[in-house]
Amino acid sequence: MAEFDLIDLIRARCAIEREDVHLGIGDDAALLAVPAGQALAVSTDTLVSGIHFPKDTAPFDVGWKALAVNLSDLAAMGATPAWATLALTLPDADAQWVAAFADGFTALAGEFKLALVGGDTTRGPLAITVTVHGFVPEQLALRRAGAQAGDAVFVTGTLGDAAAGLALRQGAARRGRGEDQLIARLDRPTPRIAQGLLLRGRAHACIDVSDGLVADLGHICTASAVGAEIDLAMLPASPALLGCVADEERAPLQLAGGDDYELCFTAAPAIATELLNDLARSGCAATRIGRIVVEPGVRVRAADGGFVALPRTGWQHFSA
Amino acid sequence: MAEFDLIDLIRARCAIEREDVHLGIGDDAALLAVPAGQALAVSTDTLVSGIHFPKDTAPFDVGWKALAVNLSDLAAMGATPAWATLALTLPDADAQWVAAFADGFTALAGEFKLALVGGDTTRGPLAITVTVHGFVPEQLALRRAGAQAGDAVFVTGTLGDAAAGLALRQGAARRGRGEDQLIARLDRPTPRIAQGLLLRGRAHACIDVSDGLVADLGHICTASAVGAEIDLAMLPASPALLGCVADEERAPLQLAGGDDYELCFTAAPAIATELLNDLARSGCAATRIGRIVVEPGVRVRAADGGFVALPRTGWQHFSA
Repeated sequence: MAEFDLIDLIRARCAIEREDVHLGIGDDAALLAVPAGQALAVSTDTLVSGIHFPKDTAPFDVGWKALAVNLSDLAAMGATPAWATLALTLPDADAQWVAAFADGFTALAGEFKLALVGGDTTRGPLAITVTVHGFVPEQLALRRAGAQAGDAVFVTGTLGDAAAGLALRQGAARRGRGEDQLIARLDRPTPRIAQGLLLRGRAHACIDVSDGLVADLGHICTASAVGAEIDLAMLPASPALLGCVADEERAPLQLAGGDDYELCFTAAPAIATELLNDLARSGCAATRIGRIVVEPGVRVRAADGGFVALPRTGWQHFSA
Repeated sequence: MAEFDLIDLIRARCAIEREDVHLGIGDDAALLAVPAGQALAVSTDTLVSGIHFPKDTAPFDVGWKALAVNLSDLAAMGATPAWATLALTLPDADAQWVAAFADGFTALAGEFKLALVGGDTTRGPLAITVTVHGFVPEQLALRRAGAQAGDAVFVTGTLGDAAAGLALRQGAARRGRGEDQLIARLDRPTPRIAQGLLLRGRAHACIDVSDGLVADLGHICTASAVGAEIDLAMLPASPALLGCVADEERAPLQLAGGDDYELCFTAAPAIATELLNDLARSGCAATRIGRIVVEPGVRVRAADGGFVALPRTGWQHFSA
């Protein structure tokens, strides 16, 4: 199958139309219209086979995840998704694989009426780079810098599921009730777009949990020149995680496991109740897990009041 | 070297500031302002080591070329460059390699005051995906669809140089006067941004020559539902090409060699002289090489009036 046929195949399966796409796939560049009064939010992320997803991941899930991890960055900015470009590097032109990949990509794109506006297919080891574009009124955007000492720290959804799913896929965790949900959390993460929109103008700082809670909250702290204390007992755990992972093994997954793509954010304690109610009504509840403090660094407090030694600081691709 | 340090290194070396970048590298997404009345032009291209550039290409040149091939797409739209994101996949975190790569990227970015606004570094086989953003008033954009029977066909610069440079690098061509220039055309292509701007509202159709003249002019013809006739004797050849490649070996390089990144465009014959004068003054002359006809397909006429058999139809990554 030739490169041009592959592009046609992807284009045909990702046919989501938007009025602000004045020229889509098929020319040297797309021509797009950004609404007046909105900033353009742009983010890019690459997934490499065997590093960012297990090599035997189903192509539908690879397509889904490649878009999801990018949309998660828009969610963390409080932006509405609009467009994406897709750079797909493939070892061979397997039309069936590409069709399933495109279906996974489009299944998620369709939820947000996101249009695929350009791309490139090349031959090489399997890797996918997506660049997403969204809109946000600039003064309402959720930045990392903005956390203030005294803020409460929150996280949406549950933590540690994707890391447990990875352990299950690798045969390193015991099987149990809910294991399919944990693996689904790894393979098909849900970008928290609606929750990011609810946080506009209310959260002081926000980030998505891709590298692990401690590492990502650490990025907020560094950007804001503050520190944070997390209460280990407050970390939200799913029934599936509780069913598959022993108590003593849970903390590292929840603190340092990446790939959950939940939003971690800070806000004034005075609005905590209202914020938590609004988020619960949005279909993804959030939990208050700690506080922003003056002293730099992220510390985790155990139930006995002492500090927990942190197992690792995040997902550093080059440190091994 | 850790991933975050690599990002800092690239960021420090690519520090080009623009007022329309309200938030650059370092948050979940960049926040950018598109000027009123302009469409946003977006394009993305991936280079894979060993496929899009020889494995022994200097890192400075890899950085230059990764941006150049993308800027060339903006040139072919008649757009002004503004921003880029960079997704860099590396087998290992070699700071010296990354510094030289960033210098090459920035050397070209600086010519157009293009700001690097986001990116991702991952571990894996060497590959680079750049997504570029530019501006063009929508009604002046240069599309592929728009060529009309009776139009003259033009190309900027010279053709076949990069393909000859590749043959030289692979030891498949004789050495000669100008060989360094041919290799430089392969490794450091010049995006024809200024020429694209001159063509705004004047060319009926435009594309950049990345896959080879016949293939790329074929894209214009398909999009415009017309055909084209090229006069082989009119194809512009550089002195370096004439010096290093025998007469009988030149046609395939000029017709089907990719990677020249010249602009191929069509326009009404009535404005040909004025257009050619303006382009010559811009620092990159263009040449009239043929005409648009009603009958579909691209044909090449030899000096004796007969048609040339075409060696191949373009650079199809998956057909081998």
